[in-house]
Amino acid sequence: MALIVQKYGGTSVGSIERIQHVAAKVIKATENGDQLVVVVSAMSGETNRLITLANQIMDRPPARELDVLVSTGEQVTIALLSMAIQQAGHKARSYTGTQIKMLTDDAHGKARILDIDAEKITNDLNNGNIIVVAGFQGADEQGNITTLGRGGSDTSAVAIAAALKADECQIYTDVDGVYTTDPRVEPKARKLDKITFEEMLEMASLGSKILQIRSVEFAGKYNVPLRVLSSFEEGDGTLITLEDDQMESAVISGIAFNRDESQLTISGVPDQPGIASNLLGPISEANIEVDMIIQNVSEDGTTDFTFTVHRNDYDQALEIMNKTSEQVKAEKVTGRQDIVKISIVGVGMRSHAGIATTMFKALADEGINILLISTSEIKISVVVHEKYLELGVRTLHSAFGLEQQA
Amino acid sequence: MALIVQKYGGTSVGSIERIQHVAAKVIKATENGDQLVVVVSAMSGETNRLITLANQIMDRPPARELDVLVSTGEQVTIALLSMAIQQAGHKARSYTGTQIKMLTDDAHGKARILDIDAEKITNDLNNGNIIVVAGFQGADEQGNITTLGRGGSDTSAVAIAAALKADECQIYTDVDGVYTTDPRVEPKARKLDKITFEEMLEMASLGSKILQIRSVEFAGKYNVPLRVLSSFEEGDGTLITLEDDQMESAVISGIAFNRDESQLTISGVPDQPGIASNLLGPISEANIEVDMIIQNVSEDGTTDFTFTVHRNDYDQALEIMNKTSEQVKAEKVTGRQDIVKISIVGVGMRSHAGIATTMFKALADEGINILLISTSEIKISVVVHEKYLELGVRTLHSAFGLEQQA
Repeated sequence: MALIVQKYGGTSVGSIERIQHVAAKVIKATENGDQLVVVVSAMSGETNRLITLANQIMDRPPARELDVLVSTGEQVTIALLSMAIQQAGHKARSYTGTQIKMLTDDAHGKARILDIDAEKITNDLNNGNIIVVAGFQGADEQGNITTLGRGGSDTSAVAIAAALKADECQIYTDVDGVYTTDPRVEPKARKLDKITFEEMLEMASLGSKILQIRSVEFAGKYNVPLRVLSSFEEGDGTLITLEDDQMESAVISGIAFNRDESQLTISGVPDQPGIASNLLGPISEANIEVDMIIQNVSEDGTTDFTFTVHRNDYDQALEIMNKTSEQVKAEKVTGRQDIVKISIVGVGMRSHAGIATTMFKALADEGINILLISTSEIKISVVVHEKYLELGVRTLHSAFGLEQQA
Repeated sequence: MALIVQKYGGTSVGSIERIQHVAAKVIKATENGDQLVVVVSAMSGETNRLITLANQIMDRPPARELDVLVSTGEQVTIALLSMAIQQAGHKARSYTGTQIKMLTDDAHGKARILDIDAEKITNDLNNGNIIVVAGFQGADEQGNITTLGRGGSDTSAVAIAAALKADECQIYTDVDGVYTTDPRVEPKARKLDKITFEEMLEMASLGSKILQIRSVEFAGKYNVPLRVLSSFEEGDGTLITLEDDQMESAVISGIAFNRDESQLTISGVPDQPGIASNLLGPISEANIEVDMIIQNVSEDGTTDFTFTVHRNDYDQALEIMNKTSEQVKAEKVTGRQDIVKISIVGVGMRSHAGIATTMFKALADEGINILLISTSEIKISVVVHEKYLELGVRTLHSAFGLEQQA
């Protein structure tokens, strides 16, 4: 007998029929004796409906009251799903974030989970109930309702799984698992049976937006085995877990990419301690997210400094850098908006030399010019002209043999 | 400086514009330094929308989950009203029933309030906030969400007013006060400035469906001055309070009436102890509500026994009484469905002789035949043929001078 936490997103519970479908899936999962806790989001469209109501009153509603408002979305779903489970002949009990004492800090709209009181859930499970919990929400020490921010239901599910020491946390989505790359770019992309938390983090932040990054971090921290599956199709999905021996055989797990990148270079910057923060400070103050940051060795006491931002932020970033350039007495600022980033991700590259060489040679063989390179322990990213995105992804997918089972 | 509890029903908060209108009214009420607690219902239509969702899953949803579902209705309103008050430049904080620890029993859907923790509200008031509380809802000792039943927001408001020892509890509705009778029947009907709790109870249960009866009982028990006002028009409404000297001058406060009555008479019942419960037991077991019950003196060891029920229940009641009649060896069962009840209500009749005589003579002068009579300490009710309803009400309204200010 295992204890399983399942999480269903807004699309999976987007209508009464779909809620009934989820009820059937949940009940089926208990047939082998497993205990089930189900975490749900608001029905798709509901959160936006509520925010629209608030915006008819004011553009920026106070965060405390906005949380009171939008948290009703999940509360509606837990009641309806509990009813559907009971209608299908099984015992069920619903809980709001407040009721299971999902304690968070008081950062309304982006609260972080601090603690969960698992006692009620455990008692109800032992009495033969399926437990249905509202995702995305909690309460601070004063009892104020908080929300974790959009997509926070994944994090709720993982936190509950950690608190209950669940055997697995299953995230049901509209995809059937994590792929070696986006199948719309490389039709030979293959679904992975397993991937490590670290790889998933790199894949997620690089554009495979299946899971909330925070939920993967959380799962990794508390070692909660996390599985991504489809709400609508059968299948075992992809298990996200700690590195194990079997995984070592796969050098590269997947190819991630980011469209809509742009780069800015400030050249001839007098090289001195603190120059990087002087350059990037004004950018982060403007709430522009910086992706890659590259600084090469200095020549003649000056250095070149390059970073990438989303293409939407390019104009504003360029304006800021032109001002900064004058202040730090740099030579000039240049930039371009026609670039994309392609990354190979895999824990295997830690113990394998030559991965970078294989990557660069494969791209060169196709005549793809590399503009920027950046690496981390389990990832190598290159920036290339946007026209090479599809060719680059397919070339690397093939070069690392990802279409074959590892 | 006074502490006022205001309650706005679903129609008063039925749209964003109306919520903004309520916000303006609430803020205006604080301008003389008064502290304000506002209790609100779900936006009109919202509770029905939620119940319809539940009924798509099952006809009789489990009461616990139904409460989780419908309680979101008021939660949406408190968030939106708090936003509207803040947008208009005043401090506001919203609270659900759970958050102010509105402790109830566990009778889901018709819970009774046991206790309220007023500490948070008092602290927030003293910090210059307007407090917005979700009506209609609470939580039992285990933290399960409960609801008080339809119209329970009135009771919530009175309970909060009692717990806070508020100076007044103001119930905003779509009428501008309590009238001497229904103005649709007697255009000369006059709005009362004051009425006692007891009179209001008799008026409410007799068809002037302005306030929930439970809220009036509650207000009377804890001596919370209750005021009925219009959400949409200016005016002081009607104050419902304890009897005072000024009131003694008004003998009769109002004329109430019930359409759609029907009567059943069982004649020649062998008179013996317990006969009344033998006759009415099967009726109450069938969940039929009995209104008037009249038993006259016995003759020859047998008695006649008459009671009235809503016309919708007449056929079922007749069938039951025919069976009962055989069992108790009564002579016969008769009945009619063409009757109405008219009542005069007033605490003044306690100390005035001749009220009944005035009533009966006024009706007789108009040729209205009285079929049944029943009295309580502050009420005299007569049953007449339905064709006399309007004439009877107008005759009594005039006979007791209700069109003139008392």
